[in-house]
Amino acid sequence: MSNNKRQMALGAMMFFPAGEHISSWRHPESDAAGLLDFNYYKHIVQTAERGKFDMFFYADELYVWDRFQSGITAANSIRPEPFTLLSALSAVTERIGLAATVSTTYNEPYHIARKLATLDHLSSGRSGWNIVTSQTDEEARNFGKDKHLEHENRYGRAGEFVDVTQGLWDSWEDDAIVLDKASGIFADKDKLNNLNYKSDEFQVRGPLNVSRPPQGYPVLIQAGASEAGKELAAASAEVVFAPGTAFGPFGTVEDGIELYEDIKTRLAKYGRSRDDLKILPGFMPVIGRTEEEAAQRLAIVEDLTPEKLGVDLLSHYLGHDVSQYPLDEQLPFTPKLEGFNQSKSSLAKIIQLLERETLTIRQLYKRLNSRGVAGTPSQIADQMEEWFVRGAADGFNVMFPHLPGGLDDFVNLVVPELQRRGIFREDYEGTTLREHLGLRRPANRYSVIATR
Amino acid sequence: MSNNKRQMALGAMMFFPAGEHISSWRHPESDAAGLLDFNYYKHIVQTAERGKFDMFFYADELYVWDRFQSGITAANSIRPEPFTLLSALSAVTERIGLAATVSTTYNEPYHIARKLATLDHLSSGRSGWNIVTSQTDEEARNFGKDKHLEHENRYGRAGEFVDVTQGLWDSWEDDAIVLDKASGIFADKDKLNNLNYKSDEFQVRGPLNVSRPPQGYPVLIQAGASEAGKELAAASAEVVFAPGTAFGPFGTVEDGIELYEDIKTRLAKYGRSRDDLKILPGFMPVIGRTEEEAAQRLAIVEDLTPEKLGVDLLSHYLGHDVSQYPLDEQLPFTPKLEGFNQSKSSLAKIIQLLERETLTIRQLYKRLNSRGVAGTPSQIADQMEEWFVRGAADGFNVMFPHLPGGLDDFVNLVVPELQRRGIFREDYEGTTLREHLGLRRPANRYSVIATR
Repeated sequence: MSNNKRQMALGAMMFFPAGEHISSWRHPESDAAGLLDFNYYKHIVQTAERGKFDMFFYADELYVWDRFQSGITAANSIRPEPFTLLSALSAVTERIGLAATVSTTYNEPYHIARKLATLDHLSSGRSGWNIVTSQTDEEARNFGKDKHLEHENRYGRAGEFVDVTQGLWDSWEDDAIVLDKASGIFADKDKLNNLNYKSDEFQVRGPLNVSRPPQGYPVLIQAGASEAGKELAAASAEVVFAPGTAFGPFGTVEDGIELYEDIKTRLAKYGRSRDDLKILPGFMPVIGRTEEEAAQRLAIVEDLTPEKLGVDLLSHYLGHDVSQYPLDEQLPFTPKLEGFNQSKSSLAKIIQLLERETLTIRQLYKRLNSRGVAGTPSQIADQMEEWFVRGAADGFNVMFPHLPGGLDDFVNLVVPELQRRGIFREDYEGTTLREHLGLRRPANRYSVIATR
Repeated sequence: MSNNKRQMALGAMMFFPAGEHISSWRHPESDAAGLLDFNYYKHIVQTAERGKFDMFFYADELYVWDRFQSGITAANSIRPEPFTLLSALSAVTERIGLAATVSTTYNEPYHIARKLATLDHLSSGRSGWNIVTSQTDEEARNFGKDKHLEHENRYGRAGEFVDVTQGLWDSWEDDAIVLDKASGIFADKDKLNNLNYKSDEFQVRGPLNVSRPPQGYPVLIQAGASEAGKELAAASAEVVFAPGTAFGPFGTVEDGIELYEDIKTRLAKYGRSRDDLKILPGFMPVIGRTEEEAAQRLAIVEDLTPEKLGVDLLSHYLGHDVSQYPLDEQLPFTPKLEGFNQSKSSLAKIIQLLERETLTIRQLYKRLNSRGVAGTPSQIADQMEEWFVRGAADGFNVMFPHLPGGLDDFVNLVVPELQRRGIFREDYEGTTLREHLGLRRPANRYSVIATR
């Protein structure tokens, strides 16, 4: 059914390999043995493609979370490396976008520009980059440092990292490669550009030894919801994924509209239009054929996390070990964003929750651990439609309580409901991730100058 | 036909995407337009698998060779990034090994350990790592440095890099992942080990967030033929690939035996046996159905490189611009290895050539550019058999004058000849690259200590 209605975008998010949840691997329906098995991921990405998702979105971290022993014994602490995984998946899919989470903190722009450009070529224009900063001391210690970078430095470096990477993608103008066997001309030297980037953070000469990606640049995605994160998003991101900001325990549709407008309004000062950036709040549907079944399934998910792991996770988010306090009393201190140097957006959500409700430590960790939106397919679709129509979302990054079943259910039950309502595609119209998302292909900075 | 004869190993080498040669892209039979097209590589790797090759071996560099303008206008200067390419190819193959060239000079061990471990998991034990050091100032300038590391430092870092990477692969003992949904035990904490590596070069705590690779460690390959390269190989490599050392313009079978014995003899001092390391000299067959056709085809390959590019390549190998001298006279200086800080093995070959023959600059660059071994399938097989039987090789890393046709010819014409002689497999017997090569699976260092 073709129609002129505005269409929502959908990302299929994999935070942990077994699902969104640190304990998803324990879910009775999860395929825990598949965590490093190619066929497990192949089934998932092909299912997402069958559901016409814009992209498969893969999260990442650069460490084993072993700050607490529960992180080793109870948490899912192994995961495939994103490029290796997504590149393999590109070979068994045709249309779906493939977004890799890559940290700007402990990487080199030349390597990352190259890998993303290669993925974009091999997938014929389906790559995306979820730009993150690394936030933990554990990660720092895997890369020759004792402590991770301060929040401001992290984002300063991230901004420069993106600049350098885009500059490297522009090394070759779109028509630079000539390949004339008769004359022996491989490339037009006047269409190859050296970046010559020099700052305290990076010195990168270029050019890149991969030609310009089919999409110009892979789609740039940003997840952070902190002040610095929002500015980075407004300056350069094309998709904002705000986990936990969608309907569910962390926010109302009014919260969603406020964040949506906050970010969209910032675009103008960077010379960008509102359509240049898509906002896809994250949420985790727990689907039942009836309300009762949905509630039962949510209860299963909420029960998966052992108490010790739940408390340790709260301690991690707070940067303060709370296992020493009575669980059935309130926190004996008020968490503050100022001077906090891990994920500010996670802490901000806790602060927001505590401002609105009085919760014991036990209630708080359980609430943080309970991120599902339970409902029938039509109830889930109702909420998505409300957020979409009222201007809180351009689409959603959908997370799954367990895999592959949570995705199977969404594709079989919710996607057809959205299609019936005319707010989600019946089939792909374009071939690249940019085309799926309705994003323009960026011009090459050097070609633009040359034709002025 | 099953037999008890010793079997040779074969690698299918891709130096440039269009073939071994800097000008292979110009070959009338090359598919130059495929350089960044997945289907081009898919055909090649599936052909190599049909030919029962042990591995597909992909070279790499981290820069555009633009020291001379001919490097941009005439040379093939773009190539896919190795992990992205090989991982995609793992999804369309079943048995063939996949070896990635990765520099230890401008990378972080944690990233590389993770990518190789992931590739090994996703390919069910088919990954290999060609360990190289970066050798040019152009590469240094893409990674925040003005000049590349001195030769000694490069190899010191390379040795430590391999140590750290192997330590990270041992993070999880083979049976550390428990995955007991009922008890909620994901992993056995006593079987997770932190590396805690600290030196001036690297500080890496670990553990790796990917479990132990199916092969224990991916197969370690080393290409360098310098003194430091040979020591690194003897200490840790499992395959030595010595380009240009096989039959052909650079060496005789006696040269091959001498190098073979030199490397094998070094193993004992590292507590290793002769079988722990396989020596696969590289060579480029130019196959004709008759001798005349082979000679004609070699002439086509030799004519592909324009004079300017040929002279500039010689200048590059020498670290000295020779385009200023008369091409039909000899070099006005004697090249010396001492103090030379690019590829010592390339320069050593030039020195060896000039000690044996008197050559003008033109003759020298043409000779360097003429690396093919022309012959009929049975002549090519004769030479391979001689090297193999006389103790100059455990097998070969085969390079192709143009792709995909050069590989097609080898698989269709030479492989059956080797099979008829009973010195190359009719089919794969194992499933992992280690099994193909007859290499043992390394024990985990921590498990070994625990069971003593």
